Amino acid sequence: MTTTALPRTTNAWLITNVRRTDGARVDVSIADGRIAAIGPNLAREPGVAIEDGAGALLLPGFVEGHTHLDKSHWGMPWYRNEVGPKLTDRIENERRWRAQSGHDAGAQSLALARAFVLAGTTRLRTHVDIDTEAGLRHLDGVLATRATLRDVLDLQIVAFPQSGLLGRPGTDALLDRALSAGADVLGALDPALIDGDPVASLDLTFGLAQRHQKPIDIHLHEPGEIGAFTLGLLLDRVAALGMQGQVVVSHAFCLGALPERERDALLTRLADLRVALLTTAPPSTPVPPLKTCIEKGVTLFGGNDGIRDTWTPYGSPDMLERAMLIAMRYNLRRDDDLALALDCVSGTAARGCGFTHYGLHAGARADLVLVDADTLAQAIVARPPRKLVVANGRIVARNGAHAQHRPAD
Amino acid sequence: MTTTALPRTTNAWLITNVRRTDGARVDVSIADGRIAAIGPNLAREPGVAIEDGAGALLLPGFVEGHTHLDKSHWGMPWYRNEVGPKLTDRIENERRWRAQSGHDAGAQSLALARAFVLAGTTRLRTHVDIDTEAGLRHLDGVLATRATLRDVLDLQIVAFPQSGLLGRPGTDALLDRALSAGADVLGALDPALIDGDPVASLDLTFGLAQRHQKPIDIHLHEPGEIGAFTLGLLLDRVAALGMQGQVVVSHAFCLGALPERERDALLTRLADLRVALLTTAPPSTPVPPLKTCIEKGVTLFGGNDGIRDTWTPYGSPDMLERAMLIAMRYNLRRDDDLALALDCVSGTAARGCGFTHYGLHAGARADLVLVDADTLAQAIVARPPRKLVVANGRIVARNGAHAQHRPAD
Ligand SMILES: [Zn+2]
Ligand SMILES: [Zn+2]
Repeated sequence: MTTTALPRTTNAWLITNVRRTDGARVDVSIADGRIAAIGPNLAREPGVAIEDGAGALLLPGFVEGHTHLDKSHWGMPWYRNEVGPKLTDRIENERRWRAQSGHDAGAQSLALARAFVLAGTTRLRTHVDIDTEAGLRHLDGVLATRATLRDVLDLQIVAFPQSGLLGRPGTDALLDRALSAGADVLGALDPALIDGDPVASLDLTFGLAQRHQKPIDIHLHEPGEIGAFTLGLLLDRVAALGMQGQVVVSHAFCLGALPERERDALLTRLADLRVALLTTAPPSTPVPPLKTCIEKGVTLFGGNDGIRDTWTPYGSPDMLERAMLIAMRYNLRRDDDLALALDCVSGTAARGCGFTHYGLHAGARADLVLVDADTLAQAIVARPPRKLVVANGRIVARNGAHAQHRPAD
Repeated sequence: MTTTALPRTTNAWLITNVRRTDGARVDVSIADGRIAAIGPNLAREPGVAIEDGAGALLLPGFVEGHTHLDKSHWGMPWYRNEVGPKLTDRIENERRWRAQSGHDAGAQSLALARAFVLAGTTRLRTHVDIDTEAGLRHLDGVLATRATLRDVLDLQIVAFPQSGLLGRPGTDALLDRALSAGADVLGALDPALIDGDPVASLDLTFGLAQRHQKPIDIHLHEPGEIGAFTLGLLLDRVAALGMQGQVVVSHAFCLGALPERERDALLTRLADLRVALLTTAPPSTPVPPLKTCIEKGVTLFGGNDGIRDTWTPYGSPDMLERAMLIAMRYNLRRDDDLALALDCVSGTAARGCGFTHYGLHAGARADLVLVDADTLAQAIVARPPRKLVVANGRIVARNGAHAQHRPAD
């Protein structure tokens, strides 16, 4: 058996006796917030605190690729949903409700973000509503949440024009301010079916992103042929402006409903331009094909979208549950296939969002989750309580409750 | 305020202060295993034990409309799924695995059935494999489980020819014996695509059912036009033999993929002949349309199908989770729509399976579940722990653990 010396740092500690998903028993040494080493039988230096992993399954901290922290009613009395079925019904209903209710985007985003951390998420991309009624109020709230949780959660903010970009003059100026004020990514929404002018809408979006040198993450619900048309326009701009690797298309329902030849041509362009896709794997809507995306080299990752808001009663800060829903949507049953669903909310999502220093290897940020499960597949379908969550090198939760960093042998 | 006198029986008890899903605060008086009365401020007779409901939400005991208790690995080490994608791959894989593993259908069905009770299920229909290799072994195991749990779980057994009826001579004789030995319902499987002869297969099935005067529950995975063809043959026989109200078609994927006119014609026949449908609401397969079924008077209820077996890693004995998956599959978001999903695993399932004395009304069997939730919709999406499960008039579980019947004020 090999042993690996740990770097001597004051904040070094060691997790012993955990199992990787390939079955190997390993220890994990942690120092300065990073994984210093991972392997069998690491040396136990005197004075280095030890946490006994007790044979638990070791997973990377989870990545939420697309949610809306600012909209959620998490922890509040139940919101009774009586909204109509159309996208515009939902947009109007939310704006109306928000004006009446005094919804506090700061408090709500913090409550939900804490719930994500408890369940093992250490990286998260959230879209934040920017519109001419709320202004930058939601952004301010989520920026405060990011500051509060800066030691435990790597939080990306997308400035998102939920009410459309062209329809409400002044929205582009607000997005411009949001990008200056700390938003990491520029959002967008259905350039044809909401904005009514896909060329003008996309040109405005890409212009803003270019000016700020920020990436784009667009909500594209547009179905079938109209979605394909808009997606084509978007890809033209990625190529023309050299924004390869800088764009995510969220939902992309159109890629679930096109004839195979047309779909595959778009997937090839997506791969070439390194444009990533995000899916929530909704069971009632066509979705981009997971295995074909993998074969073609298209990054397809996962997220919840909204969680308990005026749009939807569903969603959960437990990314193992999202992995299960993704796995069920794609009818993954074999153990090796279920691993693809975890990838969607871990490594692939980190790649899609551009979270760096991610993974279970030396040098990566020490973001770890321990669960009691025989195998990865069991962890996904049983979603056991998190025995331990480590974020940024420190214990932040134990057995489903927030915890102080105090390794316990 | 009105008060209702309780019948004086030695085993009478009272649950106070619970909320119905319409928000009304009620008490529930229970005697002789039945709901004696349900309403506000029931009289508290001296000597009658009282359980304080503490404002919990009152739900009926849940109904699992379709599972396979005998196949499950519930509570066993993880089964690593490496099976191929075809239906016949899965059938062969299971028979091979079973021959090697010494799988104990009695112990496994008992373990899973107990988990169902813990999570609030008080009525359950299970399909039990009958084939020329296992003979009646699985039936014997599930009959033993039924006897063990007879006071807490109303368990219907379907004698199910998992390996087909026509392809393995002797299967019909085994089914015949199973129906004599205690199976309540005759099962069947894809008369065209597995048996290869829909007319002969259906005639044999209906003949057996008629001889035993037992109802039928058929697995019909056959898609699109071939499924519609087989379903038509089945409906012809229901009409000709006067088996109205005696047949369930499980899955019926074909009804999710036919042109609307053809589909609606079949739904009209199903309603006229009182043939019910069962769906697991799989996210990767077309499903019968829930709201159209309701409009046309077709009984469509829900279930898990297999739970953690050689077929699938998924499924859960928590019927609130199945209600959530059904609600997501049909994109139900409004609170009043989510109630339809609970119906699928409660009242509608009881009607579909023929469980009697079911519901939250005086005279019904006292099968009750209490959860902490503001509303029914919240109960479905949050799936909170069961505070109390009452089966057949007695407390059987408290806070997710098996409990003795001991009401506690
Ligand atoms: Zn979204
Ligand atoms: Zn089945």
